[in-house]
Amino acid sequence: MRVLGVDPGLTRCGVGVVEGIPGRPLTMLGVGVVRTPADAETADRLVAIERGIDEWLDAHRPECVAVERVFSQHNVRTVMGTAQASAVAMLCAARRGLPVALHTPSEVKAAVTGTGRADKAQVGAMVTRLLRLDAPPKPADAADALALAICHIWRAPAQNRLQQAVAVHRAMKGRTA
Amino acid sequence: MRVLGVDPGLTRCGVGVVEGIPGRPLTMLGVGVVRTPADAETADRLVAIERGIDEWLDAHRPECVAVERVFSQHNVRTVMGTAQASAVAMLCAARRGLPVALHTPSEVKAAVTGTGRADKAQVGAMVTRLLRLDAPPKPADAADALALAICHIWRAPAQNRLQQAVAVHRAMKGRTA
Repeated sequence: MRVLGVDPGLTRCGVGVVEGIPGRPLTMLGVGVVRTPADAETADRLVAIERGIDEWLDAHRPECVAVERVFSQHNVRTVMGTAQASAVAMLCAARRGLPVALHTPSEVKAAVTGTGRADKAQVGAMVTRLLRLDAPPKPADAADALALAICHIWRAPAQNRLQQAVAVHRAMKGRTA
Repeated sequence: MRVLGVDPGLTRCGVGVVEGIPGRPLTMLGVGVVRTPADAETADRLVAIERGIDEWLDAHRPECVAVERVFSQHNVRTVMGTAQASAVAMLCAARRGLPVALHTPSEVKAAVTGTGRADKAQVGAMVTRLLRLDAPPKPADAADALALAICHIWRAPAQNRLQQAVAVHRAMKGRTA
């Protein structure tokens, strides 16, 4: 499975592509950051993020896109921009028919470090180890995007089983309604 | 000036097109709601909103799009969806090179009723009167979209003067830097 992970943000949107299956060594295919100037209009920044994400999708043809789930409890000043950037990432993927998975920051941390309360350095260290890199990817947004992709590769089998169960439940409810 | 107003939301995205200039009677060219099913995946809902907004832009060719500015102080459960829907509206407009204006709910209320603390009914009543309609547009999201467009037509001259002043200031700063 090839996954594009997106750590959404208006100023820095981390992107990372990882390929692999659970229980086997993972391979990093690419990592980077889509940046937009802080003094540009929000609408123009969203267009630049769309262009950047589309370029990553064209270049790497992932089967799935994993995006960080944004919570409104976060920093009030930045959360709106994060929500808007995540909307663009989801839109770019769904428009191509690619499945979009959302993972919370603690799910991602727990997946790669074993604890949902890990700090940035710990996540960076584990991403470096799991992908056999020479150094942690910089900036942290890039490392977080790779961690999201890894988290999705490892969690997807369980998530798919859950979605199938929900679909079966809905179908049965429809039949008895 | 022809303006598309967008009251963003995932479940109901109000859209309304108004044409006019300050100090002259205004004309409504269209009003409606882009709806997406609450049980669909967020990514698919964003694609449906994109399609809906693009259809309105194609049909009415506005010169400008006015979108409600979303604040994170609002209802925590709905604010993320509102931010995401507003991102799609801004993206659709900016991708076509259309200017995007953001107005706060109290700016819109103050523009059409004279007070920033007006309720939904008061806004609906003034929209009905200003556009010479037979009845207030339903649902409230549709009336709010028209109010946004009216607000923009009336505020745009002042906003343009402000933007020109900022541009001149930046250009002068650049020259002395």
